[in-house]
Amino acid sequence: MSILRIGKVAINVLDLAEARRHYGEFLGLTETASAPGTAYFKGWDEYDHHSVILKENDRAGLDHLAFKVRFPDDLARIESTCERFGFPVQRVSAGSRIGEGEAVATTLPTGHRIEFYQQMERVGIAVGNTNPEPWPDDRRGVGVNRFDHVLLTGEDLEGVTRFFVEGLDFHQSERLINKEGGLLASFLHVTNKAHDIAFIKGPNGKLHHVGFYVETWDDVLRAADLQSRHRVRTELTPSRHGLTRGLTTYFFDPSGNRNETYAGGTFPHYDNDVVTWTEDEAARAIFFHGREMIPSFGSALT
Amino acid sequence: MSILRIGKVAINVLDLAEARRHYGEFLGLTETASAPGTAYFKGWDEYDHHSVILKENDRAGLDHLAFKVRFPDDLARIESTCERFGFPVQRVSAGSRIGEGEAVATTLPTGHRIEFYQQMERVGIAVGNTNPEPWPDDRRGVGVNRFDHVLLTGEDLEGVTRFFVEGLDFHQSERLINKEGGLLASFLHVTNKAHDIAFIKGPNGKLHHVGFYVETWDDVLRAADLQSRHRVRTELTPSRHGLTRGLTTYFFDPSGNRNETYAGGTFPHYDNDVVTWTEDEAARAIFFHGREMIPSFGSALT
Amino acid sequence: MSILRIGKVAINVLDLAEARRHYGEFLGLTETASAPGTAYFKGWDEYDHHSVILKENDRAGLDHLAFKVRFPDDLARIESTCERFGFPVQRVSAGSRIGEGEAVATTLPTGHRIEFYQQMERVGIAVGNTNPEPWPDDRRGVGVNRFDHVLLTGEDLEGVTRFFVEGLDFHQSERLINKEGGLLASFLHVTNKAHDIAFIKGPNGKLHHVGFYVETWDDVLRAADLQSRHRVRTELTPSRHGLTRGLTTYFFDPSGNRNETYAGGTFPHYDNDVVTWTEDEAARAIFFHGREMIPSFGSALT
Amino acid sequence: MSILRIGKVAINVLDLAEARRHYGEFLGLTETASAPGTAYFKGWDEYDHHSVILKENDRAGLDHLAFKVRFPDDLARIESTCERFGFPVQRVSAGSRIGEGEAVATTLPTGHRIEFYQQMERVGIAVGNTNPEPWPDDRRGVGVNRFDHVLLTGEDLEGVTRFFVEGLDFHQSERLINKEGGLLASFLHVTNKAHDIAFIKGPNGKLHHVGFYVETWDDVLRAADLQSRHRVRTELTPSRHGLTRGLTTYFFDPSGNRNETYAGGTFPHYDNDVVTWTEDEAARAIFFHGREMIPSFGSALT
Repeated sequence: MSILRIGKVAINVLDLAEARRHYGEFLGLTETASAPGTAYFKGWDEYDHHSVILKENDRAGLDHLAFKVRFPDDLARIESTCERFGFPVQRVSAGSRIGEGEAVATTLPTGHRIEFYQQMERVGIAVGNTNPEPWPDDRRGVGVNRFDHVLLTGEDLEGVTRFFVEGLDFHQSERLINKEGGLLASFLHVTNKAHDIAFIKGPNGKLHHVGFYVETWDDVLRAADLQSRHRVRTELTPSRHGLTRGLTTYFFDPSGNRNETYAGGTFPHYDNDVVTWTEDEAARAIFFHGREMIPSFGSALT
Repeated sequence: MSILRIGKVAINVLDLAEARRHYGEFLGLTETASAPGTAYFKGWDEYDHHSVILKENDRAGLDHLAFKVRFPDDLARIESTCERFGFPVQRVSAGSRIGEGEAVATTLPTGHRIEFYQQMERVGIAVGNTNPEPWPDDRRGVGVNRFDHVLLTGEDLEGVTRFFVEGLDFHQSERLINKEGGLLASFLHVTNKAHDIAFIKGPNGKLHHVGFYVETWDDVLRAADLQSRHRVRTELTPSRHGLTRGLTTYFFDPSGNRNETYAGGTFPHYDNDVVTWTEDEAARAIFFHGREMIPSFGSALT
Repeated sequence: MSILRIGKVAINVLDLAEARRHYGEFLGLTETASAPGTAYFKGWDEYDHHSVILKENDRAGLDHLAFKVRFPDDLARIESTCERFGFPVQRVSAGSRIGEGEAVATTLPTGHRIEFYQQMERVGIAVGNTNPEPWPDDRRGVGVNRFDHVLLTGEDLEGVTRFFVEGLDFHQSERLINKEGGLLASFLHVTNKAHDIAFIKGPNGKLHHVGFYVETWDDVLRAADLQSRHRVRTELTPSRHGLTRGLTTYFFDPSGNRNETYAGGTFPHYDNDVVTWTEDEAARAIFFHGREMIPSFGSALT
Repeated sequence: MSILRIGKVAINVLDLAEARRHYGEFLGLTETASAPGTAYFKGWDEYDHHSVILKENDRAGLDHLAFKVRFPDDLARIESTCERFGFPVQRVSAGSRIGEGEAVATTLPTGHRIEFYQQMERVGIAVGNTNPEPWPDDRRGVGVNRFDHVLLTGEDLEGVTRFFVEGLDFHQSERLINKEGGLLASFLHVTNKAHDIAFIKGPNGKLHHVGFYVETWDDVLRAADLQSRHRVRTELTPSRHGLTRGLTTYFFDPSGNRNETYAGGTFPHYDNDVVTWTEDEAARAIFFHGREMIPSFGSALT
């Protein structure tokens, strides 16, 4: 099978109006469609109809996330893979959500719902495809380019890593291990980025953060300036991660879902060795500059 | 088949000692092996034994370039593909060059020799794989991270594009076309970068430039400062390409082979639309800021 | 006497409507007042009512420039100084232009009219003075912070340097000299920037360029991207000057007056030695990266 | 009188060998002279013999700091001013320290010793004065350009501000005030930088930090990366100050003296209005991104 990328995240929010302001005005995503209790967004540099769905709910957290596959019959192959791993499988009909084709859905042992789809309506990038400018005139707020990755928490990181690597042909770029070699964090990619999806040890079913790509360290500064201007609750001021080398800020949407602006980061290949971080260096692996664990990092989960 | 990336370029140079100073001291590649008339180099952020080979010769230009494949039996599949396209095929024995496994070689209709290999000795990245720093202490000169891409010239861009897209499953990210829709430039990628290999209309068999990746626009400035300090012959001062959005300088090695420092650039996917530049915007496509063709751009080929 | 800075430049433009779009929409200055054939502008980070005046005229070029002094009686002292140097002196009444207090005017031996003033109406910086944000929400276009400096041409650079240094207590930061030690360029500052005013050898009375300050090398890239987007005639793409170390683009307003975006640059003190560039390094002094004289640099004067 | 800048800081350190590694190898200052228990350093972009003196002592903290004046008779005028303010005055003979001319010394009401000098031996900037490169080849470690400013603590901020403004003709750029308008912080400049010297409310006689100038936000990242690599105790990871808009990291030398890398920042003039921060915004004034007071900020004083 052939997975193109992590293509979509659906996030539960407590108040859709507030969330719209956050993801639309502040982060600068573009709203492409809506339905009662739901809004669809894309980044300016994304082609597909949406990469973020906001769903009003009485609890924050992850509704589901989805990977886009390249060929129609990848869906059937993924179905078989899930069955081989003993995971539940379900088909989602085309049109169940705005702009989406048929999907295959499963639930990971970590309790997260993931889907796979091959069809989505097309909107196109904001700068167009003919003699385009390098960035759009009307970038708003932080002006993130695209949805980039998610970090989830779960108990069985070995199991979930095996599913992605052996079942779905992802590659592990980096990992954090304890003294016994057990996984405390597992970073997995199918594109040449440090992570399309990553997991850290923690309660099943929880969302740690949704990452959005910005281009440069200067963009990270600009994001942090805007976080301050708009009093966005901020957990991590501009910093580098040891894991992935990425440049980052962490902050929360009005419902308490953690977001990240992420720039830089490695460009890993499938024949790269896995980069290993040891537990005694965990704080430095995550907060490379501060080198101290921020307490809410492990507890503020949705 | 499964191609991991463009992995290697072998460049003919007129004077090996001078070329060593340029690629080693100035660009900051690391020499990993040598043989009479030949030197092997890698970037600090590359795992394999070498990505650049310098070969002393009485003419500058491209000796060959090579793509790394993921699985051993990819080589046989590529052999068949080449035969299907009517291209000559040749096996290169393991050990013909230092550190290299067996390769399959062919010659493109544009006259360039390309190879495919699955095995290369391993040296590892300069920062190591366990709790690594984000960059090495001993970066020298420009300190490029890695060999990134090549641009070649040739007559039949439609043919060579068909081979890469249909034969080798590359994707075309961007193109420059004339009024009749004929290709003047074709950008092809197999990783999520704007180009692993690209072609512009011109004489067969020629090398336009070898691109090396640096991380940021500040690194491009630093490169340009060093080009001036070391009186490296420079063709393009810091600028952006319209094609790929990349940030860049062009300059020449002592033998007249053009090099590029390249940062930024898009992160294309296989389902992206092709970005099209029209001939009337050609100067802007290449020199986005200056918007005038630099005469040597089309004529300084090796 | 005590001169605070170069505070104002009045520029002749051929078409006020076009010039307004250029200085207002493109550069991002704010229009603060207008009168028939005249418009007044300030940068977002400037306190005074205006720093740029556009005057419709049948020829482009400099109308006059002006230095702000600290104390009311500095004007009389400057008057005496001008008389001591044998320069013509004239008083300009308060209110002759919108927002301006009384001024002392003279004409340099290079034929440029300069004025000195102590009073100007106050508008204040765009971010306000109480708990301010670091930059305004509504930055438009390039979004320059402020008017920074001018470069003028003239024949007697020794004479004009003597007036500024001995008469007005400026300091020479850098200079370009020929083999005989004669001045080809003279950079003069009264604040801690590389130049408030500079002169290069050339015809008397001409304006070479008006420099506007932007904060970073990333801002210079952004300016160059916007110059391309808006097809602003560009002479120098992002580059460094050897003289002053400044980061820069050169481009022209619709009337042919050269503008510069300028970032970085040294922070000179009055006890600094003068930095000297020799004529054989003139191209590198001006175009540090390209190291070749751009022909229009010496000829495109207004 | 005419004060050129803050020119020198003498810091008490517990272990000179460790301090030498910190200020020399890590920060990248150049040692220009030494005597038993004392070492003299300068930044690569400074002309004078030294700007930092390290003195071995059994307590960390400030030994003294010094302002350079422009003219020899400024010293007598400052002497009178100190006497007029009722401050003790003392002459320090030329040659009391290596490379230094005669000085006038006083003690501020806040208990800090400050000196004024007009003469210091000359070493010159690392890139030289003729056709110089923009930065030196052999920058080490963080590679700070220069000593920039100090922040001191004291009780009577109104008194010390009056001395600098009325006595020494400094200008107040920014201030933090409580509800009654009392000063909690006072930023004072004599050059066009946001602060040559600043004070915050706190115990008399203490040093809060010594600031070193780096050029860009990318340099701040590089500094933070090196702080992590060399396990330098870090208090503030890359951030912006609201006060001055400066970009910054805080960290400690091995004796516990706080250092800052500082880039950006405003370019204030003597006719600028004072920027005022109110106590309820104090955390944001200092830590613009984190918007929470870091406890050690007020307590880690030497």
